[in-house]
Amino acid sequence: MKIDVRQAAEFLKLNDDFLILMHASPDGDTLGCGYALCGTLQRMGKRAKAVCPDEIPKKFEYLFAAAEEQEFETKTVVCVDVADTKLLGDMKEVGDTAELCIDHHETNTDYAKRTLVRAEYAAACELMYEVINALGVPFDKELANCVYTGTATDTGCFKFSNTTPQTHLIAAEMMKFGADYAMINYVNFDLKTQGRIKLEQEALKTIRYFEGGRVAIITVTQSLINSVDVDSDDVGALANIPRQIEGVDVGICIKEKKSGEFKASLRTSQLVNAAEVCARFGGGGHARAGGCSFFNGLQNAEDEIIKAACEAVRKALGK
Amino acid sequence: MKIDVRQAAEFLKLNDDFLILMHASPDGDTLGCGYALCGTLQRMGKRAKAVCPDEIPKKFEYLFAAAEEQEFETKTVVCVDVADTKLLGDMKEVGDTAELCIDHHETNTDYAKRTLVRAEYAAACELMYEVINALGVPFDKELANCVYTGTATDTGCFKFSNTTPQTHLIAAEMMKFGADYAMINYVNFDLKTQGRIKLEQEALKTIRYFEGGRVAIITVTQSLINSVDVDSDDVGALANIPRQIEGVDVGICIKEKKSGEFKASLRTSQLVNAAEVCARFGGGGHARAGGCSFFNGLQNAEDEIIKAACEAVRKALGK
Repeated sequence: MKIDVRQAAEFLKLNDDFLILMHASPDGDTLGCGYALCGTLQRMGKRAKAVCPDEIPKKFEYLFAAAEEQEFETKTVVCVDVADTKLLGDMKEVGDTAELCIDHHETNTDYAKRTLVRAEYAAACELMYEVINALGVPFDKELANCVYTGTATDTGCFKFSNTTPQTHLIAAEMMKFGADYAMINYVNFDLKTQGRIKLEQEALKTIRYFEGGRVAIITVTQSLINSVDVDSDDVGALANIPRQIEGVDVGICIKEKKSGEFKASLRTSQLVNAAEVCARFGGGGHARAGGCSFFNGLQNAEDEIIKAACEAVRKALGK
Repeated sequence: MKIDVRQAAEFLKLNDDFLILMHASPDGDTLGCGYALCGTLQRMGKRAKAVCPDEIPKKFEYLFAAAEEQEFETKTVVCVDVADTKLLGDMKEVGDTAELCIDHHETNTDYAKRTLVRAEYAAACELMYEVINALGVPFDKELANCVYTGTATDTGCFKFSNTTPQTHLIAAEMMKFGADYAMINYVNFDLKTQGRIKLEQEALKTIRYFEGGRVAIITVTQSLINSVDVDSDDVGALANIPRQIEGVDVGICIKEKKSGEFKASLRTSQLVNAAEVCARFGGGGHARAGGCSFFNGLQNAEDEIIKAACEAVRKALGK
């Protein structure tokens, strides 16, 4: 059942003992949402914990200050920034019992009993900002850090086309409440480990161009990942590299997962809808960023995604 | 004479035939200011031209749409984002006759007859936004592109500590007036030529660490620069790379100039004042970014700047 912000706030007010689920391979938006909601509910005198199926990258540890650790038996499951319970890894079954989902993905599968979705919002944290205001809990520095983190990270620091005037207005509000934006932006956008720099260099050596340079692909194997000291976040960031190269409309990064699965991440210009290309292989995402998986080896993964990307470019150009 | 926004607007209303000077090695802020002011004055029925002593990088060509080219004899010289007429290259003497300067540098030398400065603003374009409002000229997409460009480029896309809530509020306003923010951010922050990527890779191969990883240095020779297809903007951006590496407090980039001079650019954490280190060699800059030159070969340049940087780190750590 689709609900609005007021209804979501009513539901949160009437319930207690919350387990807040954040998606696997956590990013700043799901974590920002999770810790902001957890801290808000605790400030209302309720019990709440925020949980992620995967380890949380160290750089996000500043978010933990928004809430305290509490032990209790869960009564109410809420998912934040989780479009599909498949994105919950080990915790999929818990997610399937969700009473409420707060999300900004067009592809939300409506799995929860109540779903609050704003697909036009750049970040789920923009929606969380509205929920917190509807709950009447005043912002402080710690909650502001959470909401700022989601709005900044999901927009590439207000850089991407999904950014709206509202995103900036919320960021300005969070800064007024003391959000440590310079630190947040430094750790999320500038800071690189020595391992990451090495990884980027090696990944760039694999770059190949197709369709006159409009499609570019890099490949990252497990043996490369294992040879450098990096975390999942470092590996994830590689997806943005090919599309940053002049003339590239579809940037692809293929990453070998430990399971032998090959995950393709696409970043596209306005010429090509990334989610549509990925949907052909059972994946999804947004217009400018999508992902999908392949299970028949690297060569097959490369062949399939390159072919699909080149076809999408030719179709867009009317060729 | 220091004046306020209202007085600057009055002066602009009462005069005509404006020559607007932008600083040499132009960036998005001086260009955004210059073309915004030029377009605004033209929309008021006045004659105005915006001029820069150096060539304007191709990526900024979209700014030209804010104003039309006009030929006339100059009656009124205005400088924008120009702290000192030394920054006007060939046009220094024209700058010395400036009737008005609109700027945001604390170091402004007060060279103009009237100076409107807001040192607390991240971008001169934030001040230009106020001037345009005071002039009563409504924003359109082209003016909005100019003002957005300055606010975004001078803050690293709202990333740096100089960003304020006001910066975000102005960006939001400009987006409402149609600023093509996704394109502007893409060309200014994401887009890299294939030559630039190659240059970055080669420069990173030269990286060396000192003081337990707190000082890092890369070296860029003319033969490397000549071997790839890059512009001055690509070479300039290398200066930011070493400081982005985890643990680095002083990031140094030494670049060989065509003259044989070796220019060292420093980027520092709060531990070290970059301008102070550079001042030891006749250079200068800001607390977090500085530069200085050496004339006795590469080895000497490296030895001197590494020694000074390591000393500054040890002193800051009380060693």
